[in-house]
Amino acid sequence: MIGTQRWAIPEGYIPEGSTGPEPEMESHETLCILNAGEEDATVEITVFFTDREPAGPYVEEVPAERTRHFRFNAFDDPEEIPRGTPFASVVEADVPVVCQHTRLDSRQAENALLSTMAHPGDG
Amino acid sequence: MIGTQRWAIPEGYIPEGSTGPEPEMESHETLCILNAGEEDATVEITVFFTDREPAGPYVEEVPAERTRHFRFNAFDDPEEIPRGTPFASVVEADVPVVCQHTRLDSRQAENALLSTMAHPGDG
Amino acid sequence: MIGTQRWAIPEGYIPEGSTGPEPEMESHETLCILNAGEEDATVEITVFFTDREPAGPYVEEVPAERTRHFRFNAFDDPEEIPRGTPFASVVEADVPVVCQHTRLDSRQAENALLSTMAHPGDG
Amino acid sequence: MIGTQRWAIPEGYIPEGSTGPEPEMESHETLCILNAGEEDATVEITVFFTDREPAGPYVEEVPAERTRHFRFNAFDDPEEIPRGTPFASVVEADVPVVCQHTRLDSRQAENALLSTMAHPGDG
Repeated sequence: MIGTQRWAIPEGYIPEGSTGPEPEMESHETLCILNAGEEDATVEITVFFTDREPAGPYVEEVPAERTRHFRFNAFDDPEEIPRGTPFASVVEADVPVVCQHTRLDSRQAENALLSTMAHPGDG
Repeated sequence: MIGTQRWAIPEGYIPEGSTGPEPEMESHETLCILNAGEEDATVEITVFFTDREPAGPYVEEVPAERTRHFRFNAFDDPEEIPRGTPFASVVEADVPVVCQHTRLDSRQAENALLSTMAHPGDG
Repeated sequence: MIGTQRWAIPEGYIPEGSTGPEPEMESHETLCILNAGEEDATVEITVFFTDREPAGPYVEEVPAERTRHFRFNAFDDPEEIPRGTPFASVVEADVPVVCQHTRLDSRQAENALLSTMAHPGDG
Repeated sequence: MIGTQRWAIPEGYIPEGSTGPEPEMESHETLCILNAGEEDATVEITVFFTDREPAGPYVEEVPAERTRHFRFNAFDDPEEIPRGTPFASVVEADVPVVCQHTRLDSRQAENALLSTMAHPGDG
């Protein structure tokens, strides 16, 4: 088993435009979750903003021994995440998982990438 | 609650030029702070240089259940941070927070991005 | 001795195209392993997917006081890793090592880079 | 005090070419060290390769309450670090410091950036 049950990502931003063929080169903000264990995980993602109440939780499943790469711009229940707005997120899972944050920014002609492991909590 | 009360970021650099529409595509160095807890946070940011005394502290508020994404080039009290100069920073908060560091560099025609979680101290 | 025996990387993706001279500028996904200790390491890499059983283990050697930078697109025993497909990975070593994940994406005319330290387990 | 006395960076690579005005836009691999404490630090950097003995140590000073951003391509005592060759590094300090790794790659017309905190050891 590897990972913990709570993760935080202070940086989040969905750009408003894109360049290049979709969906591969569409600007996106990704939350990659690995469940390397033997039990299915239910994860709850809460999204924090600068000047309003948090959104969510967005509830997703990550089966045992599987990974899922979620795009924040696809979350729409209970609400869509606004474009062009800074946000942050917290992931809470019912079994240990590992979380990484990646962005592809294709607003200009060439794409740019960033990635970092999320910050692990005590679970 | 997730996070700790002290964070360090050894890398810092505000480029001197930009390409593209401002303010979205202006070169910037960002400190993203998430306060996922139920108490407001006061954060003090100290900036370290190669060959002079540290600057600051820059004092900011991050309310409970909110995130703020600070641009180092906007800090001006007690003094502006010089452009084109390497620096580092330490964040100290009175409640647990999580810190991430991101740079958009738009000096050339296309932008480049970097990001990493800050290094957590013992709080 | 520095490091631990288990590491996780939730993000993985081998782009399907490249621009620029090969092999330096070929799109690639790299797993950098440092064995700073005095004993040779055997590492086993397991690759996780969204909708099928994990692949591997891919077994490699990292001699004492050496580093090896593996490209996921070169792994072919027991099977190749599919292109254009999200994956994640877990590294298990028989002595402490340190793991970092880097991607060069050269699908568009200019390259993009991301890198993050892998998440350490308890080993 | 924040940080620890030992850090590892498995990824290292000095590209062989550059585009754009030097030295700002020269391709470089940077080791950023923050000494936020009140005692001067002496740091020893050892560089590891794939198929030869490690190089170094490269010995540098980071005064109290200062940061220094070292470029690997400037290290030349006891020897230069070869270009176009994968390497890794370990930093050992006599007081707690914090280390971050950044690369600017300007081989193509536009620059690319990566950055990650180094992996902390036990000190």
